[in-house]
Amino acid sequence: MSMVEAGKHGPENGFARAPSRRRAAVKALALGTVALAAVWSQAAGAQGGPALPDPATTDPIKLGWMQGSPPPKDKTIRAADGSMLKFPQIRWSFNHMRELLPTRDVRHAETPSTLATQPAELDGVAFKTMTGADMTWKEMLANTYTDSILVMHDGKVIYERYFGAAAPHRPHQAMSVTKSFVGTLAAMLAAEGKLDPQAPVTKYVPELKDSAYGDATVRDVMDMRIGVKYTENYADPTSSIWDYARAGGILPRPPGYKGPDNFAEFLAALPKEGPHGKDFAYKTSNAEVLAWIVRRAGGKSLAELLREQIWEPVGADDDAYFLMDPAGDESGGGGLNATLRDMARFGELMRNDGKVGDRQVIPAGVVADIRNGGDRDAFAAAGYKTLPGWSYRNMWWVTNNANKAFMARGIHGQSIYVDPAAKMVIARFASHPIAANAANDPLTLPAFAAMAAHLMKQKP
Amino acid sequence: MSMVEAGKHGPENGFARAPSRRRAAVKALALGTVALAAVWSQAAGAQGGPALPDPATTDPIKLGWMQGSPPPKDKTIRAADGSMLKFPQIRWSFNHMRELLPTRDVRHAETPSTLATQPAELDGVAFKTMTGADMTWKEMLANTYTDSILVMHDGKVIYERYFGAAAPHRPHQAMSVTKSFVGTLAAMLAAEGKLDPQAPVTKYVPELKDSAYGDATVRDVMDMRIGVKYTENYADPTSSIWDYARAGGILPRPPGYKGPDNFAEFLAALPKEGPHGKDFAYKTSNAEVLAWIVRRAGGKSLAELLREQIWEPVGADDDAYFLMDPAGDESGGGGLNATLRDMARFGELMRNDGKVGDRQVIPAGVVADIRNGGDRDAFAAAGYKTLPGWSYRNMWWVTNNANKAFMARGIHGQSIYVDPAAKMVIARFASHPIAANAANDPLTLPAFAAMAAHLMKQKP
Repeated sequence: MSMVEAGKHGPENGFARAPSRRRAAVKALALGTVALAAVWSQAAGAQGGPALPDPATTDPIKLGWMQGSPPPKDKTIRAADGSMLKFPQIRWSFNHMRELLPTRDVRHAETPSTLATQPAELDGVAFKTMTGADMTWKEMLANTYTDSILVMHDGKVIYERYFGAAAPHRPHQAMSVTKSFVGTLAAMLAAEGKLDPQAPVTKYVPELKDSAYGDATVRDVMDMRIGVKYTENYADPTSSIWDYARAGGILPRPPGYKGPDNFAEFLAALPKEGPHGKDFAYKTSNAEVLAWIVRRAGGKSLAELLREQIWEPVGADDDAYFLMDPAGDESGGGGLNATLRDMARFGELMRNDGKVGDRQVIPAGVVADIRNGGDRDAFAAAGYKTLPGWSYRNMWWVTNNANKAFMARGIHGQSIYVDPAAKMVIARFASHPIAANAANDPLTLPAFAAMAAHLMKQKP
Repeated sequence: MSMVEAGKHGPENGFARAPSRRRAAVKALALGTVALAAVWSQAAGAQGGPALPDPATTDPIKLGWMQGSPPPKDKTIRAADGSMLKFPQIRWSFNHMRELLPTRDVRHAETPSTLATQPAELDGVAFKTMTGADMTWKEMLANTYTDSILVMHDGKVIYERYFGAAAPHRPHQAMSVTKSFVGTLAAMLAAEGKLDPQAPVTKYVPELKDSAYGDATVRDVMDMRIGVKYTENYADPTSSIWDYARAGGILPRPPGYKGPDNFAEFLAALPKEGPHGKDFAYKTSNAEVLAWIVRRAGGKSLAELLREQIWEPVGADDDAYFLMDPAGDESGGGGLNATLRDMARFGELMRNDGKVGDRQVIPAGVVADIRNGGDRDAFAAAGYKTLPGWSYRNMWWVTNNANKAFMARGIHGQSIYVDPAAKMVIARFASHPIAANAANDPLTLPAFAAMAAHLMKQKP
């Protein structure tokens, strides 16, 4: 769970669904996009790449998934048989992870904040996809299998939509958006003096001394510049990501399974491969290590730290939750589930330099450090064609564009997009059949930029 | 899970722990009390009955259960290996069920109600146990392995305590207290004309036509006067209750398991044994059937019905949740988890004839029908020595005492005790090593009655 930004295995550029709602063969996978192919194969086309199903045919409510008491057997979704991670089942399950797996709660704020709303007509905002096709905002939503999306401008909710199984008070699987929460908590602990980014990982987690992380610094982990033998390729059933998921109890284990029994065991067994502190390489294992470090340095569970440091101060309206591994640790790599509005509250906090009103919740320096981004050359080496000039810092993706926009990103289309210059925050949940965001980026990134430009033209 | 009131297998009277905190052999089990013996045996004594551990030695925090990241292996609690249901692990797990199993959420109220507090000194309230020993309220709490307890008097919280792993905003496993919620929802649906108690069960659940329930009425189910071949004896590893728990995904399944895969399959396979509409016989299968009926008649999940009909109107402050079976249905027999204060809010609703302020949330006739109780002769036939003169109506236990008190009861000591004459509501969670409430009743019932008498002497 959580995970892929395709890194060196891809993604190639050039992907875009035609705006038509008709089933269309897409060349993206043939060009190397990493897909959730191991569990999503039924739609595979015959010409070297899979066809994407018409989004309109994948509404989980219309399809009858998990309706009735009990649901029909062929409409039942479970964790134990792996159906939870198949498409189109993910259109339901990403909205209901708690009903499928053990979770740890992050309680809503004692006094939830009120989000001012001022609905605007934005469906027609037009843009060109990365391949040059004309598209509107509304078309983008359907074509990228959006479950829910919210746009805030200058602190007001101006656009909010829920589709399929999504609902305002129903938390959605945030995938690797989780990592940005963990990275922010780590940076906050560092600002408090409770965590030293220059210290070796083993200062906090001695159990990792014989692993790849044995000679890495916390900073290397925070920026994903770790030399570790670990692959995150969804198209390859032998990829490390599946071992990670089995260790964490998210994928079912085969009979007689003898592998690692939890995240800690999995991480401690990862061997070194290549140097630390050099190229950026997106690997969920790093985020899971950072979560472990954060728990040790913070002296509390990730859930409790998130509640105290962010959820309560921003006035979150709903309980969030983490997926748990079998030993009782939260998945910091991709286990957070929250409602769209609470995600937007976090985005607003980052947009406002860490402040809620007059209260400095996150030190301004922490936010500035993230916005300024990481090493661009290190990032460029990873070869993301849809993310030219970007960088990565404290588990955030930084555009380094004129607006200084930055993002939290998770597979299948999860995102928080913060554009300080446009005073804009976009929170988005999705259940795209393709895991890698290279499948979303060619549509969503130009759409987000177009929305920012549109809003910057508005009168205040 | 949920479940046993020992019925004809017991319980015998005469059980009481000595007020001493020292480990003491207890004769109760030798006299026939049904215990969670299949999973709690390590403390069994040599003289024909188990010794109960000194409660002071069973604090799960002091014992280190689930502390650290990850916890030590010998301090880890899981569902998959059955440790979740062992003693003393239940002292932690009953406060953390959501971290161990899939759950369905019941969201807190949009505007939680404020509970007025007026703390009173009540620790010294004295009473005689059913075996004639002198004891104070405070001694009772420890001696019955109380996790948390709250007393309301005339609408105010006058006493509130949390021990061990319990905390104010942390839901606790309510066991068969769940049944009283389901019974109340059923009676509310009947008052709305959406459910006919006189109709056959098969009107709502045709899938049960070949089972014991094929010729039963809804009323028979609501009052547990069903002739069904089903046993609920925790001391017997072949008892139906374990098959029920395996079907529901609460107990691990052995390799090659071929039994029922969910509650619906389990219930549909139960054969008839004896007549319907005669003796009261406490069987969790009946509550699970009623939950199924309620979902069908109400057209919604149990969680959604509870949220709409009770949680939102009473102003619940925290999310509650249900344990789920593998098909995605809630356990209506014993799957509800909620915070102590929200349980008390429900008790207050029942005490106030179904009203919250001026708003009639539950029809007054529904509450009156429950308070008036069920057939006493039918109940007497079940042979509960600790519950003389009691009866059972709509999944509530009715004392028929001078104060017209009534209770929701769940194994290991869960309870909501409503005493209208004393204007008192007690909500209590516990993790007693013995499942059957015959292990709690000899201390708790006299303590509750003494508290009522004490409060009735107070000036208003």
